[in-house]
Amino acid sequence: MKIQLAENYGFCFGVKRAIKIAEDNKNSSTYGPLIHNSKEIARLEDDFHVGLTDNHKVFKAGDKAIVRTHGIQKQELEELKKNEVNVVDATCPYVTKPQEIAQEMSEAGYSVVIFGDEAHPEIKGVKSYATYGALVVTSPKELVKIKLKEKIALIAQTTRKVEDYMEVANYLIPRYKEVRVFNTICNATFENQEAVLNLSKEADVMLIIGGKNSSNTKQLFRISKDNCNDSYHIEDEKDLDFLWFKDKKLCGISAGASTPDWIIQNVIDAIESKII
Amino acid sequence: MKIQLAENYGFCFGVKRAIKIAEDNKNSSTYGPLIHNSKEIARLEDDFHVGLTDNHKVFKAGDKAIVRTHGIQKQELEELKKNEVNVVDATCPYVTKPQEIAQEMSEAGYSVVIFGDEAHPEIKGVKSYATYGALVVTSPKELVKIKLKEKIALIAQTTRKVEDYMEVANYLIPRYKEVRVFNTICNATFENQEAVLNLSKEADVMLIIGGKNSSNTKQLFRISKDNCNDSYHIEDEKDLDFLWFKDKKLCGISAGASTPDWIIQNVIDAIESKII
Repeated sequence: MKIQLAENYGFCFGVKRAIKIAEDNKNSSTYGPLIHNSKEIARLEDDFHVGLTDNHKVFKAGDKAIVRTHGIQKQELEELKKNEVNVVDATCPYVTKPQEIAQEMSEAGYSVVIFGDEAHPEIKGVKSYATYGALVVTSPKELVKIKLKEKIALIAQTTRKVEDYMEVANYLIPRYKEVRVFNTICNATFENQEAVLNLSKEADVMLIIGGKNSSNTKQLFRISKDNCNDSYHIEDEKDLDFLWFKDKKLCGISAGASTPDWIIQNVIDAIESKII
Repeated sequence: MKIQLAENYGFCFGVKRAIKIAEDNKNSSTYGPLIHNSKEIARLEDDFHVGLTDNHKVFKAGDKAIVRTHGIQKQELEELKKNEVNVVDATCPYVTKPQEIAQEMSEAGYSVVIFGDEAHPEIKGVKSYATYGALVVTSPKELVKIKLKEKIALIAQTTRKVEDYMEVANYLIPRYKEVRVFNTICNATFENQEAVLNLSKEADVMLIIGGKNSSNTKQLFRISKDNCNDSYHIEDEKDLDFLWFKDKKLCGISAGASTPDWIIQNVIDAIESKII
């Protein structure tokens, strides 16, 4: 069986940047998981003593708090700063941008609609910047009985599929006077999605490696599954079931934006040690 | 054979308003045809002495010039005013709006893209307001090799089909940072289109009445033809061929936004006098 990596996969610019920031800030702590990959977070803890807390109130004056790639809520950031915590911002610049757009558009009198997962930290953060509130939706259905202003600003979670985003845009545009569509889906996501689409059409088994709660990994898995029924979302080599590879010719591999290369390599090594 | 009118058809708000303006300004002249209906223009000339000229330079100081519903180019309007012509503006307010948007967006640093017919007076007018120029397209194909700014303002000709407009929006949104989609398609157009869509699914012969150069009438005809193969675009009762109605059960009728009721009634009278 041949193993082939997607043309684009894995760590994006924002994740690489955040890990560099964490490595440069030994003996600090992140507020919320820095990235959606528990293995990499464990490595940062072991090798760089970068801890993790889920409550921003534990930071005291002078403590160093690293803000996760997904960003945090505006009010929490303000609280940290008020408490004289030393904030090191590892928010991905592609996430800072929609935060800024949400604030600017809300204050300019637009209804702010965010396409994304209300429970995801990125979206909690972006929403918190909309001064007069924002509506978070995952499909056009949720807009049917809603009356918005005649001017709408539409923002997407950075890791969403552009086709799904277009469905929301296509619902709004004919129904309102102005829809200002911000393409906040990040290129890395788009490139990884394009690559997994192409590879999953050729492969007869697909592995998508990434955290189970990683939004972009889940999107990659969905795309893969649409084209290759034998697609599996795994966190690392321990999740492998070698029966998956029986009689297969081409195993395609992709990984979410928060999956480090060393985990991908472990998966490949594990397969090669058993199969072939 | 039963004759049925579409639920919405014919004269829109802007056309009614322009005709009222023309009737209120006897012994004046319009620059370009007031609306795209030669019969109604002849009636205004006969009954109200409202003439027609195709050259704005013939207007002299003190002359009264009625600006057509489709609007005119910014430079021409400025010239008329400079020459102290008494300008009576019958531009449809739904056309004035995209003119304003084109100017504002162009000056705010957006690439202005207009979905419409470059040769149509409305679009010539709207384009002329884009201070730094605008690109006029009729399909996404025309955008393929074009490099625009990262911020785009998209404007539609008021009489276009919203589905076609969405195709252009759908091409641009994933490719640029911000696409500000202005829904400048007028409601009357939309309602007439919806109504012709519904009726043409039921009727076995369809008549679309309107000027041969009327953009919105042509759109109605296209929609009708898609659903009812025996669809005919006629200007008035003289274009009728009674063979069209042989063995038909339901004749649906719609009319463009510049078609007066008296022409529609003449068509119905002519059919009823021959058929049934």
